[in-house]
Amino acid sequence: MGAHFSTTDIRFELDLPAWALGALNNLPTHLQTVDARMAAVIEFARRNVRERTGGPFASGIFERDSGRLVVIGVNRVVGNRCSSAHAEVMAFSIAQRILGTWDLGAPGLPVHQMVNNWRPCAMCLGATAWSGVRSLIVAGDGPELEAITGFDEGPAHPDWRRELERRGIDVIQDVLRDAALAAFCEFAATRSEVYNARQGSRP
Amino acid sequence: MGAHFSTTDIRFELDLPAWALGALNNLPTHLQTVDARMAAVIEFARRNVRERTGGPFASGIFERDSGRLVVIGVNRVVGNRCSSAHAEVMAFSIAQRILGTWDLGAPGLPVHQMVNNWRPCAMCLGATAWSGVRSLIVAGDGPELEAITGFDEGPAHPDWRRELERRGIDVIQDVLRDAALAAFCEFAATRSEVYNARQGSRP
Repeated sequence: MGAHFSTTDIRFELDLPAWALGALNNLPTHLQTVDARMAAVIEFARRNVRERTGGPFASGIFERDSGRLVVIGVNRVVGNRCSSAHAEVMAFSIAQRILGTWDLGAPGLPVHQMVNNWRPCAMCLGATAWSGVRSLIVAGDGPELEAITGFDEGPAHPDWRRELERRGIDVIQDVLRDAALAAFCEFAATRSEVYNARQGSRP
Repeated sequence: MGAHFSTTDIRFELDLPAWALGALNNLPTHLQTVDARMAAVIEFARRNVRERTGGPFASGIFERDSGRLVVIGVNRVVGNRCSSAHAEVMAFSIAQRILGTWDLGAPGLPVHQMVNNWRPCAMCLGATAWSGVRSLIVAGDGPELEAITGFDEGPAHPDWRRELERRGIDVIQDVLRDAALAAFCEFAATRSEVYNARQGSRP
């Protein structure tokens, strides 16, 4: 007797929260400065916490030179019941769906940039390398995120920045760092679920 | 004037190829030995190449002790136009959808095991840490995969095995290694697209 799988068992769908649609449509089509892009991303992260739709993380995909907004994703691990539904994976996947390609760096496309409210976790650093973005802007990196929120950033390569750069991805750090840290403190104050630190599920 | 997003712009869906449904239903509900589990996974990877539905990678989720098959995922980057649609992400996400949880290691669940036809790439090592599996079986690791196929495994942590083990994930290597390498050679002979090595899309 074989296993019994149905057509719904070979697919899955992930989505941004309903509020994200209005929030995206309230933004300008283009955000000219890196600070304006980061401010929008941090606001999405804060709203994700306030609306209780996910963790305090957001990731925006922009055309680097024109500032055109492609999409801003937010963390959806708990809401979508999917451990890889990090903000970056949501943003890359939706941007690729909108643009119809698995490679945001494909010939003929403008250069794409990811703007993130902290350094990507171990998984998302790898996802960044495969996404085709050519530019990564982060509000910061370092132990503050883990210290404030309790999240585990995972086994990132110790020399992650050079590993991205040798794959053609420029990295700019420390854009609106204090505002990003303030958003993590807001999250910590809510005592929401920290979903990747293996609490309650050790063998 | 704001950006113009529609409800379809805030979601995405990924799926296994149509042949996977029949192939899953042709398998026993339980696969008792690690070798039997790996043989099934390698066969999915080979079929994914033969059917031209994705790269030569498959990843199975099983209950470690009973051998119950939860799902086997295959790589869908090109077919789903999504750079993170690696076999492991497909398998974790579908297993979590079937079980209704973002944590395959949640209290009350049996111990889950991932069986992989090579060491996960940098992204998927991180995804493994977040998935909740407690056991990882790989056919092998080392430079052969990159040498044979041309894929880039990315910036994996140099001490990835210990990083997983300190997060409660046991690793067993070298199960049906030669069969896994033979499948990579079959892929190389097809001269299919190697979708993550940045060919044609350097700046």
